[in-house]
Amino acid sequence: MHDTRTIAVMEDIHGENDRLAEQVNHTLTHKRVFVVNEMGAPGIGKTTALIHLIDRITRFSPCVIEGDIESDLDTQTLTGLGVPARQVNTFGACHLDAPLVADAVLGFDFGAVRGGRDGVILFIENVGNLVCPAEFSIGEHIKMLVCSVTEGSDKPYKYPLAFEKADLVLLNKVDLAPYLDFDEAFFMKGLRALNPGAPVIRCSSKTGEGFGEAASVLESMAATAFLDGGLAGDPA
Amino acid sequence: MHDTRTIAVMEDIHGENDRLAEQVNHTLTHKRVFVVNEMGAPGIGKTTALIHLIDRITRFSPCVIEGDIESDLDTQTLTGLGVPARQVNTFGACHLDAPLVADAVLGFDFGAVRGGRDGVILFIENVGNLVCPAEFSIGEHIKMLVCSVTEGSDKPYKYPLAFEKADLVLLNKVDLAPYLDFDEAFFMKGLRALNPGAPVIRCSSKTGEGFGEAASVLESMAATAFLDGGLAGDPA
Repeated sequence: MHDTRTIAVMEDIHGENDRLAEQVNHTLTHKRVFVVNEMGAPGIGKTTALIHLIDRITRFSPCVIEGDIESDLDTQTLTGLGVPARQVNTFGACHLDAPLVADAVLGFDFGAVRGGRDGVILFIENVGNLVCPAEFSIGEHIKMLVCSVTEGSDKPYKYPLAFEKADLVLLNKVDLAPYLDFDEAFFMKGLRALNPGAPVIRCSSKTGEGFGEAASVLESMAATAFLDGGLAGDPA
Repeated sequence: MHDTRTIAVMEDIHGENDRLAEQVNHTLTHKRVFVVNEMGAPGIGKTTALIHLIDRITRFSPCVIEGDIESDLDTQTLTGLGVPARQVNTFGACHLDAPLVADAVLGFDFGAVRGGRDGVILFIENVGNLVCPAEFSIGEHIKMLVCSVTEGSDKPYKYPLAFEKADLVLLNKVDLAPYLDFDEAFFMKGLRALNPGAPVIRCSSKTGEGFGEAASVLESMAATAFLDGGLAGDPA
């Protein structure tokens, strides 16, 4: 009886979340804003990856919403670099959800960040956590998972949902690989069992390796999303 | 109204959890079993740290309960090394709680792992997550937080609860420090603002540095806990 009630409550939370996420996605698609839900463990290099990607994105105008439990350190870093960025704090919650980000997303002044001829790419950096962020849609078009050779090669086996749901995987910190015993074949075997298709790009926030390719993939995904949505014309 | 009900449900969950955790702690203290709740982000080196610690603990007999969402890779590793270990899977949940571990803890055959003259140290490796594990007591005497120079120096500012609640902090992977720009002074400033007293030990799972000191600290903490509990006599 107790279990049944718990499940009903959880289903309701997910149902409400997903309805709001769909509304956010619909509204932003019509504004030619492509939303990337960036996920990954704490300290895996999510913010630094964004800085590299934003530096290499040419056809779209990038902007960021930063999700953190507390602090606005990453937003300060990004705005200091001239990147339009807003902070969302969860104050204890271990993941973003649609109600938390909807106001920030829908209130974002995308007019001020336009410039790229094909629209906007909005990165939403989720709370550092390899578990719950994968369960909650926040209105994104794709989920981008940042992982790292420093984490060890067994992560797809231990945290399967994040790897299963990823549309794009950045394998970061490859510059440290010579000092580690990361088993890339074992990592890829676990990842491919869950996710046969997502591009996996080896990156280094230190050297910049891989981020040019990742930026191209993101721009292609964004262009395709707008084509699929019947929005191939001029930015609204 | 909705918020009020949500808070009531959460309070009840925490209340039930804490009552059960207290029972587990009471029972194990009487058996001279000192329980260490090991927390840290995914891939931070929690299992490897346990292997190093267990190798250096002399006065107590070590054993392990492994918490993972899925898989039993770490339990296989530990039992392969002759360490008594049991697996608890959360199947989706991002942290252990007292109901999840109570059966495993209370059913553990501590008779089979005895040997150290002063009792048993039971390590419970939590799910890799720097957020929720800090919120749920699982019957532990202390929380041991494993963090790493690869995570970056801003983690105490972004994930304050785990750092605030830690009784012992292992700063792992210091062998990689020469290849990183980890700002240890900034890290320590953030940590000490939250937690003035917990010992912080620099460790390397690669070289073994620091784990001898960490093992000594754990043995002292265990001995003190049994003294405080009026259990300074022979193991029960």
